[in-house]
Amino acid sequence: MTGIAQKLASNQKQVAISEFFEKNKHFLGFDSLARSLITAVKEAVDNALDACEEARILPTIKIQITKVDAKKDIIRLVVEDNGPGIPQKSIEKVFGQLLFGSRFHAIRQSRGQQGIGITGVVMYCQLTTGRTTHVRSKIATEPTAAFVDIGLDTRKNKATKANAGREIWYNEDGTGKEHGTEVTAEMKAKYQKGRQSVWQYLRMTSIVNPHAEIIFVDPEGEKHHWTRVTERLPTKVESIKPHPHGIELGQLQRMIAESKDLNLNHFLLNNFSGVTNRARKELCQAAEVEGTRKMKSVKGDDIRSLLEAFQGERVFNGLPVKLLKPPTNCLSPIEEMLIKKGLSKTIDSRFVTTLTRVPSVTQGNPFQVEVGLIFGGGMLADKPVEVLRFANRVPLMYQQGGCLLTKAIESVDWRQYGLDQAGGKGVPKGPAAILVHLASTNVQFTSEAKEALADNAEVMEEARKAMLEMGRGLRKHLEKKKKMAKTREKFELINDILPAIAEKSAQILERPVPELSGSITKIMSAVISESTTVWNKETKETDVEIVLFNYTSRVRAYTILATWPEKSGATMERNETGGRKEALGVWAWKLDSLQPGERTSIKYSLGGLEKGDWTETEILFRGSQDVIGATKMDEKFLQEIRRQEQILDENDSSSPEAGDGKEETTPTVEVHKVATAEEQVEPTVAPPNGQRTLFGGDV
Amino acid sequence: MTGIAQKLASNQKQVAISEFFEKNKHFLGFDSLARSLITAVKEAVDNALDACEEARILPTIKIQITKVDAKKDIIRLVVEDNGPGIPQKSIEKVFGQLLFGSRFHAIRQSRGQQGIGITGVVMYCQLTTGRTTHVRSKIATEPTAAFVDIGLDTRKNKATKANAGREIWYNEDGTGKEHGTEVTAEMKAKYQKGRQSVWQYLRMTSIVNPHAEIIFVDPEGEKHHWTRVTERLPTKVESIKPHPHGIELGQLQRMIAESKDLNLNHFLLNNFSGVTNRARKELCQAAEVEGTRKMKSVKGDDIRSLLEAFQGERVFNGLPVKLLKPPTNCLSPIEEMLIKKGLSKTIDSRFVTTLTRVPSVTQGNPFQVEVGLIFGGGMLADKPVEVLRFANRVPLMYQQGGCLLTKAIESVDWRQYGLDQAGGKGVPKGPAAILVHLASTNVQFTSEAKEALADNAEVMEEARKAMLEMGRGLRKHLEKKKKMAKTREKFELINDILPAIAEKSAQILERPVPELSGSITKIMSAVISESTTVWNKETKETDVEIVLFNYTSRVRAYTILATWPEKSGATMERNETGGRKEALGVWAWKLDSLQPGERTSIKYSLGGLEKGDWTETEILFRGSQDVIGATKMDEKFLQEIRRQEQILDENDSSSPEAGDGKEETTPTVEVHKVATAEEQVEPTVAPPNGQRTLFGGDV
Repeated sequence: MTGIAQKLASNQKQVAISEFFEKNKHFLGFDSLARSLITAVKEAVDNALDACEEARILPTIKIQITKVDAKKDIIRLVVEDNGPGIPQKSIEKVFGQLLFGSRFHAIRQSRGQQGIGITGVVMYCQLTTGRTTHVRSKIATEPTAAFVDIGLDTRKNKATKANAGREIWYNEDGTGKEHGTEVTAEMKAKYQKGRQSVWQYLRMTSIVNPHAEIIFVDPEGEKHHWTRVTERLPTKVESIKPHPHGIELGQLQRMIAESKDLNLNHFLLNNFSGVTNRARKELCQAAEVEGTRKMKSVKGDDIRSLLEAFQGERVFNGLPVKLLKPPTNCLSPIEEMLIKKGLSKTIDSRFVTTLTRVPSVTQGNPFQVEVGLIFGGGMLADKPVEVLRFANRVPLMYQQGGCLLTKAIESVDWRQYGLDQAGGKGVPKGPAAILVHLASTNVQFTSEAKEALADNAEVMEEARKAMLEMGRGLRKHLEKKKKMAKTREKFELINDILPAIAEKSAQILERPVPELSGSITKIMSAVISESTTVWNKETKETDVEIVLFNYTSRVRAYTILATWPEKSGATMERNETGGRKEALGVWAWKLDSLQPGERTSIKYSLGGLEKGDWTETEILFRGSQDVIGATKMDEKFLQEIRRQEQILDENDSSSPEAGDGKEETTPTVEVHKVATAEEQVEPTVAPPNGQRTLFGGDV
Repeated sequence: MTGIAQKLASNQKQVAISEFFEKNKHFLGFDSLARSLITAVKEAVDNALDACEEARILPTIKIQITKVDAKKDIIRLVVEDNGPGIPQKSIEKVFGQLLFGSRFHAIRQSRGQQGIGITGVVMYCQLTTGRTTHVRSKIATEPTAAFVDIGLDTRKNKATKANAGREIWYNEDGTGKEHGTEVTAEMKAKYQKGRQSVWQYLRMTSIVNPHAEIIFVDPEGEKHHWTRVTERLPTKVESIKPHPHGIELGQLQRMIAESKDLNLNHFLLNNFSGVTNRARKELCQAAEVEGTRKMKSVKGDDIRSLLEAFQGERVFNGLPVKLLKPPTNCLSPIEEMLIKKGLSKTIDSRFVTTLTRVPSVTQGNPFQVEVGLIFGGGMLADKPVEVLRFANRVPLMYQQGGCLLTKAIESVDWRQYGLDQAGGKGVPKGPAAILVHLASTNVQFTSEAKEALADNAEVMEEARKAMLEMGRGLRKHLEKKKKMAKTREKFELINDILPAIAEKSAQILERPVPELSGSITKIMSAVISESTTVWNKETKETDVEIVLFNYTSRVRAYTILATWPEKSGATMERNETGGRKEALGVWAWKLDSLQPGERTSIKYSLGGLEKGDWTETEILFRGSQDVIGATKMDEKFLQEIRRQEQILDENDSSSPEAGDGKEETTPTVEVHKVATAEEQVEPTVAPPNGQRTLFGGDV
């Protein structure tokens, strides 16, 4: 007796993950012929950069694209790196098996996470051209390189391999290659130029990976070279354990079921970050579960109670159990100076401001937002600003509209910061580019193609705060520029017209031309400061000069302060005017008496920097009268800097998980609500931990 | 001897698809607590609708949401349907195993395709609450229902089951349930109201599934009921074989490798749609591969040659081999009248126009675009128009900005059609709502959450054309409305003021009031038509009346034509004025002499319709003088209608794959380039096949 239900059920079967992604190859970024090529380049380059970073090798990556058959849109892509290489027996799995990789379970920042990317490329090549992908790889401990042609049995999600062998791998100059991997893939694809192109992808990659050397030979044979801007590798990231605040019930159940720990005490100490011995005791008491219980006996309601203790719903001594924050050495931000350098190098402009927020946490995953803004210069004023989005140092080139990072930009009313924006909504217009980078142990994309970030309240809040802070920097810059321009205009008027009138009058009256400096001073009635920050080729130092003019009729006294990149290891050289360190990155000079009409200057040089590292010095002052061209020292600002200094000192002397001393009350994870009025945000910006600065100026 | 490469490789392992989606649950639509609930409802309701449709059952679906623990955001969702039910042994796989299902390899329109959705719900419940999902299902051929608690072993992608058993399933009224499925799931989620809510999702579902009855009990216990609007089930869809034009090389290689056909001749005839016996012969000759070759011997270059013959790169007698188009009985569009009905029912408005394009093909997959537009009424004029997106009858509620359907709307310059649009870009503003529905055998979404369509040039082109055509309809409506308003104003002025002046003058002159009708006619100098289309409760018919006034000084002669829904099975009743059928859906009456000042009317009723099916009759005329309120009959329009009629007749008499008679030249798949100027598009709109109409009017 069979009916419709049986008939329908009889058609059901299991689909392999590879069949799924072959049918849905657009999920992986293989939708159009042009995008497919970019996706392939991206997957290969991401892998190369990740491998180099893990092996602490400065990456040199060569990308070559050739048209095999222009009529049928068949393209050959060769990507070669100098990474550690892949052992022969691992090659087939890495390239020919989906969801195979090392980074899926690791909680740390990396470009690749799922083990899908490069196998997707192999699959796409096979599907569109019927060809296998040729892989050659050499590891340092073996004399020869292994090579093999890899395909994919999509019904089984298994690699197929052919023509495997070993050979000596020669570099172009005839020397033997020490280590590295080379992938040669032929696919149906189209090479194109413009905003969404391989060239643009590589250019953006070089901005956020200044430690990489990238060489690209395009189909016309033209060679594009992005040089290494810094020899410093990104900070090494460490895998961390999950934090109790980010654990879901189902996950905790599985961890407990799979645990090989002796008992609950060991389990809590061994498997989580942020759980000290004291916290372990208190969690057990709050959950009313004995710490000496064997893992097999911890079940059902015990697990629920534990989770409630994790989340502060069950308390110890009337309070949620205090936990340490998750360590942030799993993250590797680009950092302000390198972003600034990358941006200035790539886009010619006059004002750059960058900002790295302190790490925050969402669902137990540490993350960090970095932003940069370039203003003025050769950019178009009546177009939407260029948005440069990055996640874990990978450029995001598609689906801009659907991306959380774009939404964060759109959520700000940029009109108050000097940019055009229709109705205070959407991407602002103006001669500017905005860069946003999310570094996270678990970047949540909207799809496997990794082109847009999914919605997340905490990340949104951090990105928005960064935008607001950067916006204030932009407004300050624009206001200062306007004020300076006005003063200069007045000054020029007075200096040109007043003497001319005096001369004319004197001529008519046949009297001598009067001395005018006193009058000019009276009319100007201002103290003006100007500063220059210039790279000195000869000394390899950055020369700074601060000039002050007293155009008032009284003696003036000030403390003049200047920002400098102390944090980045700069040294103060040839500072003949002396002064003293006011705070981290702020130097101060006391000017006891600046006479009416007097001009004085402060000169010093900064050592330990490279060209382009420091191009703008911010001048501040302390005193009762305004100084045009300088910002009045805000004591809050100073306190802020001092607090950071203190934190830095602390961080130097103790590891993040050092003990019970630095604990804070649960919830450790600060969940910020999106503030409705911008003013509300400002007081909470004060970072509880880590580094933070804002620096900007005319480049 | 181990180095860094070995160390890195040693950490690599295989990840299960279930682990992948657990970590990336946001890919499946489980990102925020509010959205997770909508996703769960959506997956359960989609399954219910699909199952009912396949079993040809008119669906009745009950959804109940209860707050289990409001503080901890735990929600219970119960979805019950009257579908065919699931056999006991299939339940665990359907609910507890990802990528298990019946629709993955089938080429036909369905809501679910991947076998991910409902298992994703089970996984999300388990992860967030640690609880299993209770499933109860009864099939017609068994006396009792099976029940079981389903979980998911994510490490293995296998179901876990507990508490399985059988019971009698009673309906609320105590009768025994015949067949159906009930899912009870507890998850961490938030119930909310507004634009993105369960209520809104169900409301939109009811618009495009007018054959479904949906009952929703919200957490406050309030009952929402969307009644069944039509007893007609959607057209039954048939699975089709892949079409040679959509085959990729890798796919063909696999098909040939897995083939159990006797030889190539059989292979070509058995596995593709559109390949006739003649085409089979010609393909073999073009590819230079013997048709009698055994499948095992068809390899490498043979396969490449065959693909080239498929794609018309290899020719027969100097021409590409002619293939039939893929059949379109795999699609089930909603069709204009039901869209119109759904829209009018849901959104109170004054003008509705809808349009169903003829099926087209992309990458071998048939698809069809339908659009609707509502204008005026209670909608806001200064806001962007509401966009209602649907794919295979499923509402899309998130990621509007990143969706192809939105991009199609944005690509049109709506200003020329009477809507506001800043810079002619973006979603237009105005008191309107735009509906877009894509029916396809393979809907390409941007992610597994199925909320936005990925880019595809052919679909984009079709959607854009539909928008343009609909826009022209809107413009026509607005122009007509304006003209009518002007005439009416003039008419009222003349009718009010002229007699008043005449009376006043007569009074002053003490003469009798003159007869004015002649003068009024002279001044108006127009023939005016007005029509009403009204539902008659008593007769259950739609009464239409067309009135004509001759406000000119001459006798006029016209042929008056009116549109009516003949295609939808309406009948012409009580048409005492006679006339004749002019074309499919167009009736004509000849008026030989309409005297100056005369008023005449045409009355008839339409049978076979339901209330709301037909609310506006379009009046056309043929004659030398304009008729205000009617459109001059365009002979092109008529030819168009006649051609459609012919096609319909042909379709009735022959199946789509009937033989060699109806073939067309390769490429069968018309690849339209996106036209840059709107004018370019117009001539190509004429459909080569299938049905098409545009109807609209003041509702």
